[in-house]
Amino acid sequence: MKTVEVCIAPSLLNLYDTKNKVVVIVDIFRATSIICTLFMNGATKVIPVNDINEAIAYKKKGFLVAAERDGKKLDFADFGNSPFEFIPEKVKDKTIVYSTTNGTNTINLCKNFDLVVISSFLNFTSIVNFLINQNKDVILLCSGWEGNFCLEDTVFAGALSEKLISTNSFHAQNDSTLNSMDIWNHAKPDVVEYLSKSFQYNRLSKMGMGNIIDYCLQFDKTGIIPVLEDNYLKKHQI
Amino acid sequence: MKTVEVCIAPSLLNLYDTKNKVVVIVDIFRATSIICTLFMNGATKVIPVNDINEAIAYKKKGFLVAAERDGKKLDFADFGNSPFEFIPEKVKDKTIVYSTTNGTNTINLCKNFDLVVISSFLNFTSIVNFLINQNKDVILLCSGWEGNFCLEDTVFAGALSEKLISTNSFHAQNDSTLNSMDIWNHAKPDVVEYLSKSFQYNRLSKMGMGNIIDYCLQFDKTGIIPVLEDNYLKKHQI
Repeated sequence: MKTVEVCIAPSLLNLYDTKNKVVVIVDIFRATSIICTLFMNGATKVIPVNDINEAIAYKKKGFLVAAERDGKKLDFADFGNSPFEFIPEKVKDKTIVYSTTNGTNTINLCKNFDLVVISSFLNFTSIVNFLINQNKDVILLCSGWEGNFCLEDTVFAGALSEKLISTNSFHAQNDSTLNSMDIWNHAKPDVVEYLSKSFQYNRLSKMGMGNIIDYCLQFDKTGIIPVLEDNYLKKHQI
Repeated sequence: MKTVEVCIAPSLLNLYDTKNKVVVIVDIFRATSIICTLFMNGATKVIPVNDINEAIAYKKKGFLVAAERDGKKLDFADFGNSPFEFIPEKVKDKTIVYSTTNGTNTINLCKNFDLVVISSFLNFTSIVNFLINQNKDVILLCSGWEGNFCLEDTVFAGALSEKLISTNSFHAQNDSTLNSMDIWNHAKPDVVEYLSKSFQYNRLSKMGMGNIIDYCLQFDKTGIIPVLEDNYLKKHQI
């Protein structure tokens, strides 16, 4: 029996032993949803960078760059942080450099781990099948918001934990996992309605991004598993 | 309208602005439940210490010392970490030095804050009334377990948040608060039964401490509010 552990904020990851485990990065609004979208629309590589200066340096070298802070596209960048910008005409066969407020930092925390994948509702069933096939312990790493707990990542972590445990190949390893499954059970009759009380839902709605919320909460738009290799993400080859 | 914010682990407290707020420390299993018990049974002061050597130094000076690590009373100490040890015959009119695995560290993190109180199910209604009377923003600081999220503190934080918000004098300020209230709603039909899946419940049960669990989950055994003053706790004078 393998374990599934939820880590609710990146700063708590030092409490977890990541060795020989699969770390699944979650940032529903919006980094991991957008990374799934990028590969779905044909991007070949995504390079996550923390620092704006690093993103500018990549831009000067001729890369396409997506860069956002506090919900707004930065001037020098080719893309902001809306999934609707990353259309196949613009990203197919391209490498995209990507920098956001939270999610890309979380990815870069995981650079030296054994196996790191990117997950969102958009590739939910594929991630479930991938994790079952790996037959390893799993850590679901929630990016949260500005270093703190957030509901949308918890809802997702609960949905994924419940699905893994329902196969009888996994069991919940910590209270964070039990918490996330109870929250998922609150949310699952209507995830959008449930999250309408959350901080990020209200923040994005006020910025006119209700359509992005709806987009990020769709199940199974792609079968692709983005996987971290050195300093970039690529499609997992089955 | 005042705010109530839940902080699910001490290491996330740096994300909160504590100025002019009341910080309510929660460690249901067992530090804050035991501190309530100590004052209920007549102790006049409780000195929380992090370090075992500091506890030993107090012992040498003639203080009564309660000291536990990983569930076991330390040899030099007068008390371990069971609420049933702190009977009036032993603690009335006494100062008790207290050191535990998690809870006392959390208290000492808060030494320079404006107003810090200790809460558990045992003084629930009194804390509610105290916080309403203070008319200040509130942070519920969960001690968690070994630095990470735990369900029992979250259940309590949810119960307290819900009660404060029901007065219409408070509103929830962050996703952690919303999470805790949803968990409380799962738990409230039978808190002991709900927590039977949690890590600490199982740990304490295996150590034969089921009676301690039941004790710590009782509402309103005392009206006392322990409050932090300099380096010790005393009864709040109404």
